[in-house]
Amino acid sequence: MADSDAPVSSSNRELVLTRIIDLPPQKLFRAWTEPELLKQWFCPRPWGVARATLDVRPGGICNVVMLSPEGQEFPNPGVYLEVIPSRRLIFTDAYTEAWVPSAKPFMTGIIDFEELGGKTRYTARALHWTEADRDAHEKMGFHEGWGKCTDQLEALAATL
Amino acid sequence: MADSDAPVSSSNRELVLTRIIDLPPQKLFRAWTEPELLKQWFCPRPWGVARATLDVRPGGICNVVMLSPEGQEFPNPGVYLEVIPSRRLIFTDAYTEAWVPSAKPFMTGIIDFEELGGKTRYTARALHWTEADRDAHEKMGFHEGWGKCTDQLEALAATL
Repeated sequence: MADSDAPVSSSNRELVLTRIIDLPPQKLFRAWTEPELLKQWFCPRPWGVARATLDVRPGGICNVVMLSPEGQEFPNPGVYLEVIPSRRLIFTDAYTEAWVPSAKPFMTGIIDFEELGGKTRYTARALHWTEADRDAHEKMGFHEGWGKCTDQLEALAATL
Repeated sequence: MADSDAPVSSSNRELVLTRIIDLPPQKLFRAWTEPELLKQWFCPRPWGVARATLDVRPGGICNVVMLSPEGQEFPNPGVYLEVIPSRRLIFTDAYTEAWVPSAKPFMTGIIDFEELGGKTRYTARALHWTEADRDAHEKMGFHEGWGKCTDQLEALAATL
């Protein structure tokens, strides 16, 4: 593989949600990075968030503990890889903390907030290590789930 | 898993080499991060390095193309996760560039350069996602290979 080869694509291992949101990037970024805000929109209701640890810097812990309607908790330990305030947020479950490998690297999340004259082009991508994991994520309801969460995000961020 | 649980250990998925080197951390760090220097020590001879791309910053590409004695090239694409000049260098093959998942996350390398009054406590750790990968890496000759490379590193850095 020469250095000059075509850029690597992960398109067959990727899921994408994109939407124009009538709010500035700053409000959406706050809703993604402040635990008390994130808890209000991150899981599609009737699921919720029991607690969230968000140490928003490269290598910082990102752990959202999801709460089922029956009261069961599901931790999602991960770390941030890249943080550009109000512009970009990248995290992965490949590490449980800096830099301890997790039991199973499943996905990397890339959230882009692009300013469009007061609005935001919001793009949420999930990149997987395997096509099988991408397909499983899609069958788990990626599009409906992330879509519903994005509705909730938009409603919450509008109150800020 | 409560936030207050005991810290996660990767010890059964880790390989470690540690050595006191009679050189300051700055020289060892240079040998790790300047391509023309790294090429001179990174592979146990008679193996060599065909070329090295070292974009030494979080998310930057770290690709050392190894060269077999028969002239065959073996790329090792990865990215840096953390860089503290003359103190710490962390990289992984879980991504081929920021932040494209690789075909197979195998290891994360953590290199610590600890100043000890003009000398360096040098610690090179390889953290794997599975015990099987750790064991395979050990059988591939981790201790002998990394030991020999560290001899070469020490000899090269002494000339700086």
